[in-house]
Amino acid sequence: MTELVFVGLGLNDEKGITIKGLEETRTADAVFMETYTSRMPDFSIEQFEALCGRKIQMLTRSNLEEENGRAILQVAKAGKAVFLVPGDPFIATTHITLRIDAEKQGIPTRIVHGISIMSAIVSLSGLHNYKFGKTVTVPFSDNFSETPYNVIAQNQKLGLHTLCLLDLRQAENRYLSIKDALEQLLIVEKKKQQRVINADTPVVGIARAGSSSPVLKAGFIRGIVDFDFGEPPFSLIIPGSLHFMEIDGLLAFAGAPLEFRRLAK
Amino acid sequence: MTELVFVGLGLNDEKGITIKGLEETRTADAVFMETYTSRMPDFSIEQFEALCGRKIQMLTRSNLEEENGRAILQVAKAGKAVFLVPGDPFIATTHITLRIDAEKQGIPTRIVHGISIMSAIVSLSGLHNYKFGKTVTVPFSDNFSETPYNVIAQNQKLGLHTLCLLDLRQAENRYLSIKDALEQLLIVEKKKQQRVINADTPVVGIARAGSSSPVLKAGFIRGIVDFDFGEPPFSLIIPGSLHFMEIDGLLAFAGAPLEFRRLAK
Repeated sequence: MTELVFVGLGLNDEKGITIKGLEETRTADAVFMETYTSRMPDFSIEQFEALCGRKIQMLTRSNLEEENGRAILQVAKAGKAVFLVPGDPFIATTHITLRIDAEKQGIPTRIVHGISIMSAIVSLSGLHNYKFGKTVTVPFSDNFSETPYNVIAQNQKLGLHTLCLLDLRQAENRYLSIKDALEQLLIVEKKKQQRVINADTPVVGIARAGSSSPVLKAGFIRGIVDFDFGEPPFSLIIPGSLHFMEIDGLLAFAGAPLEFRRLAK
Repeated sequence: MTELVFVGLGLNDEKGITIKGLEETRTADAVFMETYTSRMPDFSIEQFEALCGRKIQMLTRSNLEEENGRAILQVAKAGKAVFLVPGDPFIATTHITLRIDAEKQGIPTRIVHGISIMSAIVSLSGLHNYKFGKTVTVPFSDNFSETPYNVIAQNQKLGLHTLCLLDLRQAENRYLSIKDALEQLLIVEKKKQQRVINADTPVVGIARAGSSSPVLKAGFIRGIVDFDFGEPPFSLIIPGSLHFMEIDGLLAFAGAPLEFRRLAK
């Protein structure tokens, strides 16, 4: 049997995988894993190996994606290779080329989905899924871009929420903080002199979505910049127009100040 | 201990749940489940009960959400109640009120996420996640609405993809087909005389996302309306502008015709 199965690890730790994903891993001829596209704060490779009864070959970003891909495809030609990826295997675009290469070489591929940070954040927030517009990643300031601001502006014009993923450099153990992300957005606002975001804009900060201790805090930017979210990873939502049910949720789950009631549309 | 834990069942069958979710279920004082917000085609309640070693109390839509909620809250006041929900517990808005009610009554709530159809479809398609705009549900024709068309038009103007969930009536075992959804959109096009969607518009149809035999087919509408997608549930993507890498993916995974190459922007 020649086969390459992409299995999502889900979020946070070794128990974020599905039963289906674990079974696929147990029956693999070789198991590869990467943790460079996303952070899994409480993941223990030893515990995961005990859970699935397989030795895991860790891939690092120091190798090119192509080199990692070659190693995986070589095994997949001769048997069943499982590639474990944090979250869902294809919500980040990193491994799509590997899947295309496999199919072109006649190696059948399958996907066993994992929980994505995208849906976990929406779910935690209590905001309505169909009111989210385009998603954006806020980069570190040394990689500064006006794109996040522009995406937020576009979504707000349509009354839509914006989910902002905050950049991370796993190898350097660096995570963009919610405060730094907000300050970058405020810098663009000042430069462009538009009215998209200011100290009175309501936002929702989220830390460690998918862990057993996620932190959610809704508030106006002036109050959120100094809030202590604890350990990474972090994310941020800039709400568009809010339904009163969504505000009820933010009051109940995210410690929103009572002034949020006035935002209902 | 008083606690209400919402656990996502993920997609398709009893093995779509995470290890974490299964452990929460095993340690519950009472376990409730609903399957009315979403379909899990291959789910067996008997097999799931064997897996988790608990008797499951099935809730039906024939009861009001409020009645179901009262039964759950009563148990949660005295111990640990687990509420199993298809997909992720809060991607649909149905149960948000129950969570708010619990918190208001001083019952702590937690979420153990499940895989959502939203991220599974994006992942399967190979299209780039950050290029999706607002999501929309296409209703049955007896509940006809121009909203889906308008959302697609808005997204297309911004070059964004639209994920269309297709309506279902679980109790009647009725599922809106991809063909019927497309025909509804074409009726609005004709009426509005705009240029959003026509026989030559590229689309991606998906059946049974999250199962072991998902069907994906990319093509122009004229070719897709008569394609046999097999069993439900169904979904549909109307792509905005396509990157050549996305087209490579549609050719490799979704049997897109070679003319798709000309769509690259």
